[in-house]
Amino acid sequence: MSRVWNFSAGPAALPEEVLKQAAEEMLDWQGAGMGVMEMSHRGKEFTSIAEAAEADLRELMAVPDNYRILFMQGGAIAENAIIPMNLLGQHDSADYVVTGAWSAKSLKEARRYCKAHVAASAEAGGFTSVPAMTEWSLSDDPAYLFTCTNETIGGVEYPFEPDLAAIGRAEVPVVADVSSHILSRAMDVSKYGLLFGGAQKNIGPAGLTIVIVREDLLGRSVPACPTAFDYKTVADNGSMYNTPPTYGIYIAGLVFQWLKRQGGVAAIEAQNIAKAKLLYDYLDASDFYASKVDPACRSRMNVPFFLADESLNEVFLAESKAAGLVQLKGHKSVGGMRASIYNAMPLAGVQALVDFMRDFAARKG
Amino acid sequence: MSRVWNFSAGPAALPEEVLKQAAEEMLDWQGAGMGVMEMSHRGKEFTSIAEAAEADLRELMAVPDNYRILFMQGGAIAENAIIPMNLLGQHDSADYVVTGAWSAKSLKEARRYCKAHVAASAEAGGFTSVPAMTEWSLSDDPAYLFTCTNETIGGVEYPFEPDLAAIGRAEVPVVADVSSHILSRAMDVSKYGLLFGGAQKNIGPAGLTIVIVREDLLGRSVPACPTAFDYKTVADNGSMYNTPPTYGIYIAGLVFQWLKRQGGVAAIEAQNIAKAKLLYDYLDASDFYASKVDPACRSRMNVPFFLADESLNEVFLAESKAAGLVQLKGHKSVGGMRASIYNAMPLAGVQALVDFMRDFAARKG
Repeated sequence: MSRVWNFSAGPAALPEEVLKQAAEEMLDWQGAGMGVMEMSHRGKEFTSIAEAAEADLRELMAVPDNYRILFMQGGAIAENAIIPMNLLGQHDSADYVVTGAWSAKSLKEARRYCKAHVAASAEAGGFTSVPAMTEWSLSDDPAYLFTCTNETIGGVEYPFEPDLAAIGRAEVPVVADVSSHILSRAMDVSKYGLLFGGAQKNIGPAGLTIVIVREDLLGRSVPACPTAFDYKTVADNGSMYNTPPTYGIYIAGLVFQWLKRQGGVAAIEAQNIAKAKLLYDYLDASDFYASKVDPACRSRMNVPFFLADESLNEVFLAESKAAGLVQLKGHKSVGGMRASIYNAMPLAGVQALVDFMRDFAARKG
Repeated sequence: MSRVWNFSAGPAALPEEVLKQAAEEMLDWQGAGMGVMEMSHRGKEFTSIAEAAEADLRELMAVPDNYRILFMQGGAIAENAIIPMNLLGQHDSADYVVTGAWSAKSLKEARRYCKAHVAASAEAGGFTSVPAMTEWSLSDDPAYLFTCTNETIGGVEYPFEPDLAAIGRAEVPVVADVSSHILSRAMDVSKYGLLFGGAQKNIGPAGLTIVIVREDLLGRSVPACPTAFDYKTVADNGSMYNTPPTYGIYIAGLVFQWLKRQGGVAAIEAQNIAKAKLLYDYLDASDFYASKVDPACRSRMNVPFFLADESLNEVFLAESKAAGLVQLKGHKSVGGMRASIYNAMPLAGVQALVDFMRDFAARKG
């Protein structure tokens, strides 16, 4: 078996330790005589798995007691509808900060449910930066303000945490799509009303959605909200109103344990800073490659880059793949290349990429 | 490692061959250098996995060309909302045949979206039978008629396939929740407008929902339907509008291949008939145990049964568990015991259960 360096934007590489444990336990979880996939979600074995996963996530992110952690289905795209259906309550509008493809998609979906107001947009600059909070223009009475704090496609990450108290609008709950940088850096959960993300980038398998929601925001759903996606129903039933994606929760739990063994979020953040610095420093020093994102807003997780001579794109992809570096093709809407370097990507993988890029540039430059 | 006989109603036992292959491929799928959980859903490796799974399911169920197979999320409970949101179109009502806890729940959820009319109900008889089609009273212009053709909790299975042409209402599409008996018996897909089910009983892991829908029913969604759950959007994007539950699709594909190696649905149906006959014949011959379901409507998949002396329930559960027979406790709403004997449960497992029951009755009777 030879493992590649997998730069996929998601589903993405997982820690080998996690995969090895999952393989070993596939037919018999800790003497239960059955694998996790075969367990009743209401049995004591799986209940212990789900409770440990939730407790570990709560510890890792220092989630305050007045927030509920929900294990759901549908991914971030489904949440684009589920969020307004849950949070609108008596409001008829919500505010959106648009910083790239994902928040633009969230805005579009919200317009099916309410008046969605653009509080700020980075579109004029080609989605390469994040508008400062002082430029945000909130509407009078929005149900919430929506942000996507790391844009997976554009490679733009907030260099600050949204904090509406700082602009005198503390009463508006901040919603954040953190799919592609959850657990990669410290986040002050208390600054948000709701954090959510698909698991398939920094946590585990596709099909699991994490929602962290402040308790006072439960119970505001509109009549059209499906019961299975009503946050209050999900919370009241410990994420077991409908059968949850049990195996995904199990894998997520193994990832949380792995992350704790690495030293938790602070330690992995230091590692992520080092990984991103290695790659961006090389991009900045090279005339052969370029990053187009405002340096202050460059994502530590998703690094789009471009060859100065784009006619070399195909050979770059072919040769990098032959060298064991895969999934480097940029998103079709952006072009070029993209290296996603989530928590499970070690520094050695980024070093291998930079080494390849340097060698490629020397040969083709 | 010692495997138990797992009678869980779902998530449920999976074929050992499937679990072994999944364990072997966990870190490296067929030389790809990565596991299936780590693959981009748009890469050629995973695309080949998803296409094979769909093709095998289409072959196993002889799904006609004018039906689409969708891999979705949310389970049957979410579908209770997603179905009316997709099929109502210009209609304001739908008809429901209520044969147990699951169809009753579906009816209740539908009432959030439309006038839901009870076309027939078995409630008066305690949900122990299926009303004959000649007793069904359809409304004038329903968007569809909903059925649950195997009630997992009550252990009631339709002894016929709903066929509205037989009662002169061929224009009404039949919807069927087949979660707990899909692939266990031959089904004539052409008799239905839509078949759906959670995968966690007869197919694979929780978190994957299978929808088989006739093409002419696509494009009828109501405005409140989330884009991620709009059947037309899902179909137009090959189940990849949002990131699908990739690992669940992979495991489902392995189960489909396993099922083909067993000889397909006809062969597994013969096996299921033999398994159910073994258990029901013993129940009928015994005074110690009883089945309460109309013999004509007894489920081959879910077999609730009762001890004549219910004070022995706890000791029955404790001793059966000690004998390696687990998850036999009946649903709390029904009481007693329940043995779910899906495709992956071999005849030997049912024989072990009957042997235990006979021994227990001899000792305690």
